[in-house]
Amino acid sequence: MNEITKQVGNLDLIENWQSVANGVWKSEIGDMNSEKRYISLAAEAPRLDRINGLSPTSFPLENCMPSFQDKDGKITVRIPTEKDEHIYGFGLQFDGLKKNKTVLTLNTDHWGKGNGRTHAPVPFYISSRGYGVFFNTARFMKVYCQIGNRKDSQNNPLPVDRNPVSGSEPINPWQAVPQGDAVEAHIIGKGMELVIFGGTSMLDVIQRYNLYCGGGTLPPLWGLGFWHRVHATFDADQTEAELSEFNKKQFPLDVIGLEPGWMSSSYPCTFEWQTARFSDPFSFVERLRKQGVRLNLWINPYISPESGIYEKIYPYSGSHLVWLGLVPDYYMSQARQLLVQQHTKEHLKIGISGYKVDEVDGYDFWLWPDHATFPSGTSGETMRQTYGLLMQELLYKDLFKQNNQRTYGNVRSSNGAASGYPFVIYSDSYNHKEYITGISSASLCGILWTPEIRNASSAREWLNRMQTVCFSSMAKLNAWATGLQPWSFSEVEDAVRQVIQLRMRLLPYIYSSFANYYFNGVPPIRAMILEDDGNTEIETRIDSQLDSEANPYAMDKIIEKTDQFMFGPSIMVAPFYENQATERYVYLPPGKWYDFYSGQYAGSDTTILVKSELLNDKIPLFVKDGALIPMLKQDVMNTEEVIGHDLEVRHYGVDDGTFQLYEDDGKSFDYQKGVYRIRTLSFTNQRLTETISKDDADSMFGSVSLKRMI
Amino acid sequence: MNEITKQVGNLDLIENWQSVANGVWKSEIGDMNSEKRYISLAAEAPRLDRINGLSPTSFPLENCMPSFQDKDGKITVRIPTEKDEHIYGFGLQFDGLKKNKTVLTLNTDHWGKGNGRTHAPVPFYISSRGYGVFFNTARFMKVYCQIGNRKDSQNNPLPVDRNPVSGSEPINPWQAVPQGDAVEAHIIGKGMELVIFGGTSMLDVIQRYNLYCGGGTLPPLWGLGFWHRVHATFDADQTEAELSEFNKKQFPLDVIGLEPGWMSSSYPCTFEWQTARFSDPFSFVERLRKQGVRLNLWINPYISPESGIYEKIYPYSGSHLVWLGLVPDYYMSQARQLLVQQHTKEHLKIGISGYKVDEVDGYDFWLWPDHATFPSGTSGETMRQTYGLLMQELLYKDLFKQNNQRTYGNVRSSNGAASGYPFVIYSDSYNHKEYITGISSASLCGILWTPEIRNASSAREWLNRMQTVCFSSMAKLNAWATGLQPWSFSEVEDAVRQVIQLRMRLLPYIYSSFANYYFNGVPPIRAMILEDDGNTEIETRIDSQLDSEANPYAMDKIIEKTDQFMFGPSIMVAPFYENQATERYVYLPPGKWYDFYSGQYAGSDTTILVKSELLNDKIPLFVKDGALIPMLKQDVMNTEEVIGHDLEVRHYGVDDGTFQLYEDDGKSFDYQKGVYRIRTLSFTNQRLTETISKDDADSMFGSVSLKRMI
Repeated sequence: MNEITKQVGNLDLIENWQSVANGVWKSEIGDMNSEKRYISLAAEAPRLDRINGLSPTSFPLENCMPSFQDKDGKITVRIPTEKDEHIYGFGLQFDGLKKNKTVLTLNTDHWGKGNGRTHAPVPFYISSRGYGVFFNTARFMKVYCQIGNRKDSQNNPLPVDRNPVSGSEPINPWQAVPQGDAVEAHIIGKGMELVIFGGTSMLDVIQRYNLYCGGGTLPPLWGLGFWHRVHATFDADQTEAELSEFNKKQFPLDVIGLEPGWMSSSYPCTFEWQTARFSDPFSFVERLRKQGVRLNLWINPYISPESGIYEKIYPYSGSHLVWLGLVPDYYMSQARQLLVQQHTKEHLKIGISGYKVDEVDGYDFWLWPDHATFPSGTSGETMRQTYGLLMQELLYKDLFKQNNQRTYGNVRSSNGAASGYPFVIYSDSYNHKEYITGISSASLCGILWTPEIRNASSAREWLNRMQTVCFSSMAKLNAWATGLQPWSFSEVEDAVRQVIQLRMRLLPYIYSSFANYYFNGVPPIRAMILEDDGNTEIETRIDSQLDSEANPYAMDKIIEKTDQFMFGPSIMVAPFYENQATERYVYLPPGKWYDFYSGQYAGSDTTILVKSELLNDKIPLFVKDGALIPMLKQDVMNTEEVIGHDLEVRHYGVDDGTFQLYEDDGKSFDYQKGVYRIRTLSFTNQRLTETISKDDADSMFGSVSLKRMI
Repeated sequence: MNEITKQVGNLDLIENWQSVANGVWKSEIGDMNSEKRYISLAAEAPRLDRINGLSPTSFPLENCMPSFQDKDGKITVRIPTEKDEHIYGFGLQFDGLKKNKTVLTLNTDHWGKGNGRTHAPVPFYISSRGYGVFFNTARFMKVYCQIGNRKDSQNNPLPVDRNPVSGSEPINPWQAVPQGDAVEAHIIGKGMELVIFGGTSMLDVIQRYNLYCGGGTLPPLWGLGFWHRVHATFDADQTEAELSEFNKKQFPLDVIGLEPGWMSSSYPCTFEWQTARFSDPFSFVERLRKQGVRLNLWINPYISPESGIYEKIYPYSGSHLVWLGLVPDYYMSQARQLLVQQHTKEHLKIGISGYKVDEVDGYDFWLWPDHATFPSGTSGETMRQTYGLLMQELLYKDLFKQNNQRTYGNVRSSNGAASGYPFVIYSDSYNHKEYITGISSASLCGILWTPEIRNASSAREWLNRMQTVCFSSMAKLNAWATGLQPWSFSEVEDAVRQVIQLRMRLLPYIYSSFANYYFNGVPPIRAMILEDDGNTEIETRIDSQLDSEANPYAMDKIIEKTDQFMFGPSIMVAPFYENQATERYVYLPPGKWYDFYSGQYAGSDTTILVKSELLNDKIPLFVKDGALIPMLKQDVMNTEEVIGHDLEVRHYGVDDGTFQLYEDDGKSFDYQKGVYRIRTLSFTNQRLTETISKDDADSMFGSVSLKRMI
């Protein structure tokens, strides 16, 4: 490359691209020695073997080379874009997937309000042109996505007079935000690592990103059952009484979560049992386990002076307190060891299955300030961007994986390279429509999201939220504040029980979908744009009318349709979520779609109206032609009943189809050493056949039998 | 100072305090060579002589020495505070004056939403303990105001269990935001200059700040008359017809403002006349001037390719465009000269009186990005913090002051050290209550603010907004979008005319109040907390109740009473602003207060209920005991009629009193060379006396006569 082309306006071309694997390139800008990479916090090493097994792809930015600027303490990157290119992602964003013509501040925060600040502000985006960009540096980042016009660009539109004299009105009216021709983003820091992913489709790009980050997580089977977090002040007796009620009412239950009251002092935390509520934690946990139920503990990371590890961890904590508790610096092994020892002794040894890690997203009003310092030398800013990741890493690697025991839990913040972690993000925000958008949004950035149910203003809302959460990564009622139970709205008790039972019966299908996440990086629950590469993206553009009073800056509004999503390989979910609505529109992409419940043909490449039955709603589910869906033959109360259970394999439509049924022990990490089975189910010539493509473990499920849904 | 005390936790004490004048100290942290100071953009040099004339005061932070940290590209400053200390300021903030327990991001932006981003994010605060702190560095700043607890602090409250077991509830319940003991603030940059102001009162501190920034501005007399901005597409004939209507309807008018349509192309701008609308600008301006009316021109700074200066100014503009127009770098003399030449020839020479400088606050969606570069080496960030100031400096110094002609106009952003500029900030936000809060807020940071009227949903609202704006720095109807006139709501035409006439009759009082701003730094319109040093601050604290669902973080809410303010030395204004309200509460501080209109005693140190007359409202005005208020004897249509006009000097209550009536030519800068008069009016022994304390100019007003308001 000669000297002249190295310069793009007053930026420099990014060079020294290093090919990491098939379709993955990286380059460093500035000095990365003093910066932290998200990737170094990943659960597992990059799965280069799996990436290299994907279709070959060439460097996607050959004709739009990225450039950079290192100035005024900022590293800026510019990646040219085409006018009609769509940009999706940038983490868990509740206001939509498409980020064209947007400015985002990627800064970990509680609640996502659409400005980029969110629980998981992952600096990764994918383009409709079939590539992805990962800004692999743990700093706040400000992104101008097709916003801004450089004066030396060749692609700028012509300026337009905003107040033309009558008769000289321009063809294209004035706009407040002229079309930009790049993504420009900057961090304040010394260096940045940029990772580019190619792909034959957007899904292919996502797979590469997830595999590069170590592959998707495979939760223990029990993690995919039903979860119930009891009221924060419940004691052992109250908790066990609640479990009895689940049994009496015939509601499945796999995990009970305790909220802060289990601890001797919380906000800040001791991590020690509140003996006034739980006099004998060991026996308590054991009694639950005998009924097939596991216990999950709420924590936040801030350490109370009343905690036994306070004095020892003090030197390894940051300059500022949170709720007057220490903020441990888990980049220091001394701090990690102290926590691991304490948690092992007090929780793991008595059978605790996992954690809900609260408050790691923070809010400026109570978190450490950005200028806080930490003994490892990590900046307050980087600590904020990575604290959720760091807690996941610590608990996953040092506590559970160390003991060859899978875990599943919650965390309230995450970031880049998180796909391998068995932690599901949740929020306090609680808008049902946004929660559904979150399901799609999460699939674009290697995270899991639960639209957990807490409360409802009506039985209808209760039912619809329960349905949504049963088709998410974690089917959970979080009653920490309300004390509600799944049957609290009696008008919908049966309908709620049915949808929870449906989730349970789908567990073979769901578990295999997660295996596909682990092995191939395919998100188990996915945005519709990943199904057909965005070709059927539905959006409503509300064109701006320049109105001096109501709309003085003439900004267009784009409303994306993000209220339906893919669940596993072949089920499309379209929840009801508007409380009073008696119907909703569902878009059926090209290809034939069938009603999940009846097997009836529903349509192809069309929008249909689905009627609600209000208090008897079933969640609208549509299945692809030829799909095979392995389900339990009978209802179960718990995932322990799943083992050895015979399967009904539903076939929809007319096409042939296959399904790779994944099996392992459901709880250890032995699958990572190859101890698993794959039973390939095929529907051809109107019948079901089964072949074992891999057989290095015991079977998980019983025999399979075909059920044709026609 | 020995080595041990230099260290405060892991911060270093700020040393090398330099005494600049009586009660003013400054110190530099880090490297200021590559940073810009707001003070270097001030209208005038620091008025050290005036500062030294104030009461002596000692270094106010002797017992709470500021410390700093220079790390990770950030300069952080920590200033200890007492628990009960009140912190006010940080620029034009519409959500209140007090900033305790708040996090602010001081970043120039359009619309103030309460997070610090606002039209004038001035990094200056005052404390109820009688000092002020000015962060004199043109960077974004993040402020944690009594938010955050350092682990090495001696003042931290004790942690509290958030979920205590029954019977062990703590005396002080858990709070999401524990009491902090400092203001901590950081910029991302290499250096910071800190300026500390002492004072015997908060007003004394504000005076020092304003005088240090060159003193307050003294507008031309005509600037204090009534302003009317016509519809954006008006041509010369329509504008002149509008003026005729003002005359016919007997509504005073001093300035007509033209909106973008005057220009051949706007957004971006040419600064050249749209000849289809204004075929002969010179004659047009001359015809207005003959009727005593001046012309003000709307501009924004972004330069259209159709502008005659586009090619020449191109090299002196930034890397990015705004609305596809160039962003001139006015830190470069080449760019300044080009604009000054163009404006002088096309505007100043034909009699234009000033400008409304729009869009200098910007919005991330259309302004240059923070990483934009400018040929002077100024960063995009610093350019954003100072662009409004820079435009004021350029127009004030190079255009008007150069020609010994005072100007008055509008600007949509400002920042530190702006008190000397004759530009009034305005907004698109338009909430009447917030607009009233803005009046008080502006007085704490050396800026002027107009709650301009644009439209109303009812005649009542129209009247009340008109009343508010007549008691502000600029009495202006901005009809750019609505085309409305003061008499557009016929039900309140008389009441509107009356309040505009009242403003006109008060001009001697108002003009003298501005002279006091210029000479002594006393804001002409002031927050109530400056009247009695915050002792009568009224606020409602809504104590938080920890509620897991509705208020899970238990945050207190404080509602300040910011709906009344001081206008000049002795009038307190309490506008009606709630559209349907038939009454409002007014707090009367200690000291006797009298009704402005009737002279009746109203109360002392009490809250009274003032009844509204709805469509016949008079704006509630209360006057201090002993006050002298010089007013014109008759109504006038224009400030030209003010010259030589005899004055009625109203005396309220029973106390003796004085008033310094200021006089000069009302239009040139000769007053800065001493060409002015001060007539000291005194009420003693039940009669009015007049002495000329300074007499270096012609008189401005006629003879004075007493009117006792009893």
